[in-house]
Amino acid sequence: MNAADLGLPVAVPSTALFTDRYELTMVQAALRSGTADRRSVFEVFTRRLPEGRRYGVVGGIGRVLDAVENFRFDPAVLQFLGRYGIVDEPTLAWLADYRFRGDIWGYPEGEVYFPGSPIMRVEGTFAEAVLLETVILSILNHDSAVAAAASRMAVAAGDRPLIEMGARRTHELAAVAAARAAYVGGFASTSDLAAGFRYNIPTVGTSAHAFTLLHDSERDAFRAQVASLGGGTTLLVDTYDVQEAVKMAVEVAGPELGAVRIDSGDLLLLAHRVRQQLDDLGARDTKIVVTSDLDEYAIASLAAAPVDAYGVGTQLVTGSGHPTCSMVYKLVARADGDGADAPLRPVAKKSMGGKMSIGGRKWAARRPDADGVAEAEVVGTGEVPAELADRQLLVELVRGGRVVGREPLDAARERHIAARSVLPLSATQLSRGEPVLPTEYL
Amino acid sequence: MNAADLGLPVAVPSTALFTDRYELTMVQAALRSGTADRRSVFEVFTRRLPEGRRYGVVGGIGRVLDAVENFRFDPAVLQFLGRYGIVDEPTLAWLADYRFRGDIWGYPEGEVYFPGSPIMRVEGTFAEAVLLETVILSILNHDSAVAAAASRMAVAAGDRPLIEMGARRTHELAAVAAARAAYVGGFASTSDLAAGFRYNIPTVGTSAHAFTLLHDSERDAFRAQVASLGGGTTLLVDTYDVQEAVKMAVEVAGPELGAVRIDSGDLLLLAHRVRQQLDDLGARDTKIVVTSDLDEYAIASLAAAPVDAYGVGTQLVTGSGHPTCSMVYKLVARADGDGADAPLRPVAKKSMGGKMSIGGRKWAARRPDADGVAEAEVVGTGEVPAELADRQLLVELVRGGRVVGREPLDAARERHIAARSVLPLSATQLSRGEPVLPTEYL
Repeated sequence: MNAADLGLPVAVPSTALFTDRYELTMVQAALRSGTADRRSVFEVFTRRLPEGRRYGVVGGIGRVLDAVENFRFDPAVLQFLGRYGIVDEPTLAWLADYRFRGDIWGYPEGEVYFPGSPIMRVEGTFAEAVLLETVILSILNHDSAVAAAASRMAVAAGDRPLIEMGARRTHELAAVAAARAAYVGGFASTSDLAAGFRYNIPTVGTSAHAFTLLHDSERDAFRAQVASLGGGTTLLVDTYDVQEAVKMAVEVAGPELGAVRIDSGDLLLLAHRVRQQLDDLGARDTKIVVTSDLDEYAIASLAAAPVDAYGVGTQLVTGSGHPTCSMVYKLVARADGDGADAPLRPVAKKSMGGKMSIGGRKWAARRPDADGVAEAEVVGTGEVPAELADRQLLVELVRGGRVVGREPLDAARERHIAARSVLPLSATQLSRGEPVLPTEYL
Repeated sequence: MNAADLGLPVAVPSTALFTDRYELTMVQAALRSGTADRRSVFEVFTRRLPEGRRYGVVGGIGRVLDAVENFRFDPAVLQFLGRYGIVDEPTLAWLADYRFRGDIWGYPEGEVYFPGSPIMRVEGTFAEAVLLETVILSILNHDSAVAAAASRMAVAAGDRPLIEMGARRTHELAAVAAARAAYVGGFASTSDLAAGFRYNIPTVGTSAHAFTLLHDSERDAFRAQVASLGGGTTLLVDTYDVQEAVKMAVEVAGPELGAVRIDSGDLLLLAHRVRQQLDDLGARDTKIVVTSDLDEYAIASLAAAPVDAYGVGTQLVTGSGHPTCSMVYKLVARADGDGADAPLRPVAKKSMGGKMSIGGRKWAARRPDADGVAEAEVVGTGEVPAELADRQLLVELVRGGRVVGREPLDAARERHIAARSVLPLSATQLSRGEPVLPTEYL
């Protein structure tokens, strides 16, 4: 893939500097001690879901593949590392040749996960695999947090479409990734043009209060918008008085007016009033879009209200209270010695302060009960039991450094719906509780 | 400035797509209605601080200037907008010529702010100024959230240095901006190489548990690290048994060992024990770095412990519970008619649901009491009272489209210390409370 394909409007010639300095100093020390080439297995997992959450959602796999493919140390980067003495000359030479030549398996994007799920497994030499830690965690921790929030909101919204509009509430490039993760989690569209450009996500949007205030009257503003964008547009009706604005909107656009948007006030009450008013005015097909500081709970509270679509910003892009996951990237096995055929040996930090790790290269499968409902996340280090062999969760993503797991974003979006649909019913409860599946270690 | 200077490893040829679709459709409708060229004043402000916070910290001004300078619609972007029918042909032609030619004033970076502070003021035609809304808010909302968290942590840490190490917990490019904002807020260094590359922030880092686990013994790992990085390195001592590791660390590196790092367990207890042990071993100058899930409260609780530096990740980059600010970008005045010399007329949305706005082009000043301690944030729309004339907070950032407010990052960092130092003493309380300055409207 050409680096430019990574996504204008932002060209990322290299992802290699999205890396903590210690990854490079570890490579330097390992090169010197002769351990850099030991075959190693790193795994990404989380010890816990955010408090009260019932399941996690894997987001960002596609972006990880882009990042791995473009993880090269170009001359400008090497010059920087040398000038500041971050690593020594032998390490610079090694980095100049670097590309990841190992294997990556992982939960496919949109899949759900639980504490201990081996969400991603990176195998290669120690040096080549350790370097990827920071950027892989950045992507998975951010994107999965947004995907999980999106999934909860999608559950709350039912069949009504959700519009992602949080760009202004987060870093301008995090916003693009957030729109992508929201789409995976069930959102229908985004306000963010860069997300439309980069990921082909449908973009939407019409006008803000400023547009009404710019004109000499609300009627002038509505006329201007309808003249330019057509009667199917969405008119914002809460700049002054909602009731007057709705009346005026239908006068200006006619009963074929596409939608009205309400962005403040008591949305439940206003939705009912506006629906009645629109119906009385003959605008029975005019939709109502609401957009004011919504989260999954506010969306759920509007389930019985005549609302047709929800626009969600802040709470989506900040993960609805949990802006990051607590995924870690841990060495779980490494060659027991320096020979090319040295066997893998499980390793783990000693548990202290709740930082538990389980050594060994893991598989995972989701065991269904007799009705096909998932009943456990089974994680093991040995042989996969025959009855779970076709229930395995990890798929091949990178083979010998070559990306083999790329897929369209819609595949991830559909997978998420399928994965959620076989979870126990309690998965769709918004209230706090335990993960809906226990994790069993074999 | 050359777009490439914006910062490898990420070249941003254009920031124009970091924009909500409705900004462009508003421009289209305004072009058609003849209001696009009305002189307009937009202001960025927040109606409230995050709950319990005493002050806000302006972050991201330098990045806003970069974004404004590079806000152009290049051919690839125009083609995208045309292909998806996002705007019509006349609008595409207008966008092709676009560059911001107006004026921007704002609070300088590192300054503190309060509810209602006019943090930024963008003046120009409606069309040219409305387009900047999304990207300006993205940057200010994200960077200010991190800067505020950093400032609280810096207060808690006192003279001890803080290391930013949250890259893995947030979007890979948000991480770079977070490291920058943390530096403004008082952090000394970052683990993020891209932040070092782009912003010259000092980078630090040595090794992770994986490095110890890679080797056949902890002693082998320590030897490898010291051999490669020297005795001044920081050895991670909590992979197995802290006490044994500290003993071994001093044996391997000698009493000139730079530091030990503790990343888990009861940090208060361990710091005391490790200090005692180091002193007993003659390693009196060996420092202790702690790094486990710290926030400002955990830092404060270690004030009496023999800790020399703190590494902070998750809670820093997620704004310590408040990952975004609630800054908005509102039209507060616009030309009253279409003549070139039409007077400005204050405008504001009708208040509903707490979304209060005050119309009119504003100034702001911080009024000191007799002792020089700030006692009020004064915001007004008319003449500046003579006694406040030299206390004004907004500075010129962009004049006629040309950036005039660029400054070194260290200037923002120093400004923040100065601004915080004249706030009432309660500003340094970490407990929840009201903003330490009331906002007075004149």
